[in-house]
Amino acid sequence: MSENVYKKAEIVGSSKTSIEDAIEGAIARASQTLKNLDWFEVMETRGHIVDGKVGHYQVTLKIGFRLD
Amino acid sequence: MSENVYKKAEIVGSSKTSIEDAIEGAIARASQTLKNLDWFEVMETRGHIVDGKVGHYQVTLKIGFRLD
Amino acid sequence: MSENVYKKAEIVGSSKTSIEDAIEGAIARASQTLKNLDWFEVMETRGHIVDGKVGHYQVTLKIGFRLD
Amino acid sequence: MSENVYKKAEIVGSSKTSIEDAIEGAIARASQTLKNLDWFEVMETRGHIVDGKVGHYQVTLKIGFRLD
Amino acid sequence: MSENVYKKAEIVGSSKTSIEDAIEGAIARASQTLKNLDWFEVMETRGHIVDGKVGHYQVTLKIGFRLD
Amino acid sequence: MSENVYKKAEIVGSSKTSIEDAIEGAIARASQTLKNLDWFEVMETRGHIVDGKVGHYQVTLKIGFRLD
Amino acid sequence: MSENVYKKAEIVGSSKTSIEDAIEGAIARASQTLKNLDWFEVMETRGHIVDGKVGHYQVTLKIGFRLD
Amino acid sequence: MSENVYKKAEIVGSSKTSIEDAIEGAIARASQTLKNLDWFEVMETRGHIVDGKVGHYQVTLKIGFRLD
Amino acid sequence: MSENVYKKAEIVGSSKTSIEDAIEGAIARASQTLKNLDWFEVMETRGHIVDGKVGHYQVTLKIGFRLD
Amino acid sequence: MSENVYKKAEIVGSSKTSIEDAIEGAIARASQTLKNLDWFEVMETRGHIVDGKVGHYQVTLKIGFRLD
Amino acid sequence: MSENVYKKAEIVGSSKTSIEDAIEGAIARASQTLKNLDWFEVMETRGHIVDGKVGHYQVTLKIGFRLD
Amino acid sequence: MSENVYKKAEIVGSSKTSIEDAIEGAIARASQTLKNLDWFEVMETRGHIVDGKVGHYQVTLKIGFRLD
Repeated sequence: MSENVYKKAEIVGSSKTSIEDAIEGAIARASQTLKNLDWFEVMETRGHIVDGKVGHYQVTLKIGFRLD
Repeated sequence: MSENVYKKAEIVGSSKTSIEDAIEGAIARASQTLKNLDWFEVMETRGHIVDGKVGHYQVTLKIGFRLD
Repeated sequence: MSENVYKKAEIVGSSKTSIEDAIEGAIARASQTLKNLDWFEVMETRGHIVDGKVGHYQVTLKIGFRLD
Repeated sequence: MSENVYKKAEIVGSSKTSIEDAIEGAIARASQTLKNLDWFEVMETRGHIVDGKVGHYQVTLKIGFRLD
Repeated sequence: MSENVYKKAEIVGSSKTSIEDAIEGAIARASQTLKNLDWFEVMETRGHIVDGKVGHYQVTLKIGFRLD
Repeated sequence: MSENVYKKAEIVGSSKTSIEDAIEGAIARASQTLKNLDWFEVMETRGHIVDGKVGHYQVTLKIGFRLD
Repeated sequence: MSENVYKKAEIVGSSKTSIEDAIEGAIARASQTLKNLDWFEVMETRGHIVDGKVGHYQVTLKIGFRLD
Repeated sequence: MSENVYKKAEIVGSSKTSIEDAIEGAIARASQTLKNLDWFEVMETRGHIVDGKVGHYQVTLKIGFRLD
Repeated sequence: MSENVYKKAEIVGSSKTSIEDAIEGAIARASQTLKNLDWFEVMETRGHIVDGKVGHYQVTLKIGFRLD
Repeated sequence: MSENVYKKAEIVGSSKTSIEDAIEGAIARASQTLKNLDWFEVMETRGHIVDGKVGHYQVTLKIGFRLD
Repeated sequence: MSENVYKKAEIVGSSKTSIEDAIEGAIARASQTLKNLDWFEVMETRGHIVDGKVGHYQVTLKIGFRLD
Repeated sequence: MSENVYKKAEIVGSSKTSIEDAIEGAIARASQTLKNLDWFEVMETRGHIVDGKVGHYQVTLKIGFRLD
């Protein structure tokens, strides 16, 4: 990273199975419209509860991508 | 919210009358260009002072909206 | 407050009209089951959005009450 | 704001009616002894409870004012 | 969530296998004594170390549930 | 701690003499109604002032206890 | 506290013997020039080390006092 | 700023020479695609190390701009 | 620092050229009215943007000074 | 833990597969050079993105170990 | 402190009697292996509970020492 | 960074001239005894005041380096 400029977008992914799956989902969706995705930072992990179990995980990420 | 992906935008609303009015203004403006607005989080409340009174409130929100 | 012991409960009130109304609602509900309510601290203010407007405010409070 | 120097004072206003009223009270009192008040930042919102209702709101502000 | 009041309880789950398993354990235990569990927020992830490996994960959650 | 589940309660102790005494007071009171107290975390230390001296210390603790 | 306005001053007390003694020293000094001292909040505890021992404790307080 | 609405974008600038130069680079890049840039807030300062020296500074800014 | 008492003032300096210059400006101004200035802590760095460049830096400091 | 003294080291583990695997990797490496590892605390979770997927997770831990 | 370089180590002291005693224990142990200890900062105060009383205090410090 | 493990050290650099110079000094000193330095994060910026001017800047960094 030298003299480049990056932007961060804040994205929330969700998954019924795992925290990692929610992260992958958020990145996959972001990569449909943003180019040059470079890194992510987990900001918050939460979720909904259904019948005494995790209904789905919700993971908020900041995703950094390089501006051309 | 199941398997959906959301994005958060950070918006600052202002109002001469109240904190709630500044929040409503920020959401109204965001809804002109963003679809599927779902929730907001208040990040910061501040404002300017004019003649020993609140000139206007400035409320910073994160607004979450679902990506199609 | 001298040699007393207090407990804090974390409560979320909601209201369609204002932040103050959400606070009052949380305190009113807490006072049905807890005695000697003494003070509150606002921890978080957020809410849902419906049709480009605030659907309702959700205010998280810590409520302090004295143990007998 | 160019080459100016500002100071911040930390003030707590209180009101029986609303958060905005507590903010206005703090600013009004500060303007009696400080000149050139410019902006405020809400640091904390809390209050006392009386008979299952808000007794009064206590809002802590930082108030910025320009030094001559 | 409209005009409802919620309470948050702070629970620590533990698991020898994964962070998700510790979260599920905390929620399962909470659902034995609390009704209407709605959401959780991960506050802290830590654990003990045994023989150069994770002995178990300890995950602190806030669990939100609706008051009747 | 293996596969156990713990709960945290937030308690405020007060004492005219010392921070440690306020902590002991909060724990002693909590142990009257809660079983299996295991650890505490100091969250906040504050107090009232009377005649230019500490009137009493108020120490907020989180107290962790094992659920059966 | 009803409709009153308070100010907070940030003071650092020091002591060779204890944290409580540093707090008392800060409050005693503040009470020489400020009236109506009401409460304090501990912000930070630190100190210097001399010959492998605490040389003195330095405790930063916010001190709240009522404005006439 | 009266009744206006602002948005914040999070941008990371980098520079081999100084923190100020990284800030200027981020703002210059942002001004190519965003109008009405108004203020910035430094969120984080970090960088890479090459051969025992700063390779480049990376400064994360929030940039506020007025929405038309 | 032994048995002394210090006070902290919160000051905002501004400069068109650099962060260091804004810090020096704040300290120079504070030293006109306060004696025995001892240390500073940078709390926040921000600024205004003019024509796609930094208009001026605004650096908020806490300045510690010894009370006689 | 009674009258013992502990030290914390800050370690970053990485893994292509999961957060738990990154934690295990950091602990395994730390246990090669440090004795009496006792607990860990997760400080930060982030990672790099490659081709629209997580390239690897990077998890920052504090690892506590007893000093003899 | 002029042109010197310092390092911080994070140490946890414990004591059955007081917070100050835990701090002294941590510093005494650190001074066995580190030279030029200069200052400490209290990061966290917690402890274990035994039979409704404090079993021991655990105080986490950052200890700053000058590198030769 | 793939499957590598990194450690972070916390270092304080000082300089009479600038924040950047303090950062460079801390990194230069660290590189005398640590190998594979990779990145730094600025944690805190403060300094001493002498005769109404900055005596020297003190910048606390976390420095990340790869373990072999």
